[in-house]
Amino acid sequence: MLQTRELLDSLATKAPLNNEILATTIDTLATCEEAVTACAAGMVTGQDGASMALAVALDLDCADSVLATRRILTRATGPNGALLAAQLEACLIACQRSHEECSRHSAHHEHCRLCADATRQAADACRQALAALRA
Amino acid sequence: MLQTRELLDSLATKAPLNNEILATTIDTLATCEEAVTACAAGMVTGQDGASMALAVALDLDCADSVLATRRILTRATGPNGALLAAQLEACLIACQRSHEECSRHSAHHEHCRLCADATRQAADACRQALAALRA
Amino acid sequence: MLQTRELLDSLATKAPLNNEILATTIDTLATCEEAVTACAAGMVTGQDGASMALAVALDLDCADSVLATRRILTRATGPNGALLAAQLEACLIACQRSHEECSRHSAHHEHCRLCADATRQAADACRQALAALRA
Amino acid sequence: MLQTRELLDSLATKAPLNNEILATTIDTLATCEEAVTACAAGMVTGQDGASMALAVALDLDCADSVLATRRILTRATGPNGALLAAQLEACLIACQRSHEECSRHSAHHEHCRLCADATRQAADACRQALAALRA
Repeated sequence: MLQTRELLDSLATKAPLNNEILATTIDTLATCEEAVTACAAGMVTGQDGASMALAVALDLDCADSVLATRRILTRATGPNGALLAAQLEACLIACQRSHEECSRHSAHHEHCRLCADATRQAADACRQALAALRA
Repeated sequence: MLQTRELLDSLATKAPLNNEILATTIDTLATCEEAVTACAAGMVTGQDGASMALAVALDLDCADSVLATRRILTRATGPNGALLAAQLEACLIACQRSHEECSRHSAHHEHCRLCADATRQAADACRQALAALRA
Repeated sequence: MLQTRELLDSLATKAPLNNEILATTIDTLATCEEAVTACAAGMVTGQDGASMALAVALDLDCADSVLATRRILTRATGPNGALLAAQLEACLIACQRSHEECSRHSAHHEHCRLCADATRQAADACRQALAALRA
Repeated sequence: MLQTRELLDSLATKAPLNNEILATTIDTLATCEEAVTACAAGMVTGQDGASMALAVALDLDCADSVLATRRILTRATGPNGALLAAQLEACLIACQRSHEECSRHSAHHEHCRLCADATRQAADACRQALAALRA
């Protein structure tokens, strides 16, 4: 999405990540946040709710970690990348755990398939941002 | 964005709004949330911080109201649209107030210009969703 | 809690509500947010998950509306109370709906009993804040 | 606060932390979230806004990291403490950074003094929870 990149380019912040990586990560996380929120809602209302309990909780955890990470990346405050790195690490774990659990339900639930895709892409984006931070 | 619509179509929820309107509103609000978060960060770090105090606070209020609205729309729980309508009303006011204030700074700050656009589109989306809810 | 009142007293904001009402509302909402988040987690992992689907979704909606309301009350921006009133209205509905649904499960689930109490108190706090805003 | 402990005791979750530590950490983080949100609002509207830009951004980052951590602790999902640990690490850094920056302004701003206290206590709570997780 062009807009996130444009927004970041209009800020005077000196982030420890360049705006191309920041914008890609933010947009991928936004898509992921929507997917886990919708998927959790779908699992809660489904007939097989009891067997989905772990997947629901992991999706809710993921939505909250992604939200914090997305906003902190948008502010990308100061030259110190320590908080960015730590929040990206937490987000990576949250996305991976949702991905693993929802992948097991992808055959029965279309929302789990979409969610497993979105969390895999978000985990990849976190990994790339972390690699760039440490470069 | 195709994905939000696909996600909503994969849920069995009977929302008081159809999925096309829901998906459009959710995506427009997600773009708005990013814009007000980035714009607030840009104003805080700018040289003219003191004169931007109201605009910063309105953008932060807007980000929080949009977040709640976006997640509640994604769950669009049950046939009862009362919460949806009330949260959309609050969100509409939050977007309008940010729009009015950031419009005044659009000439000096590119992030205010982008934010004024995004909040106007989000306010329009809230109005259309409210009209559909009441139809 | 003393601290919230102390914090608000240290701000120079001219809120449309006095700090005593603001602090009470914020603290009651914070307790409510914790209760609905915990209660939703308890219902998801319970054996009777399927019959709790609506209650889970209402608790998640409530947590998000309360979060936005709590932060907007803390900033209580400017003399204009329109956003405050609209967000409090949405929050009141969210708390009432969670209260009604969790009350039905209070006999079987201690977390629903605690949640029904917390959402009732939060709804009362919203009503009192709205009455003060309109006085 | 008694209520958080009661709520956690009513859940059947097998968290990797005991409920006493979980409840203390959650409540300390809730107090911190309120303090950084209020302090950021106070700094934005203050006369010396420009010199407070970093402190504002750190407080906003802290509020978002604390929110995610608080909700993930409340769900404390499953026997796997990896996400809990990573999110606590991020939160610890966010609280420390806010604490360091607001401490520098404690003499001039009462809200910075209250915020510096709250973020120090939150950082301590994160450290203790992390130590318990690793024990």
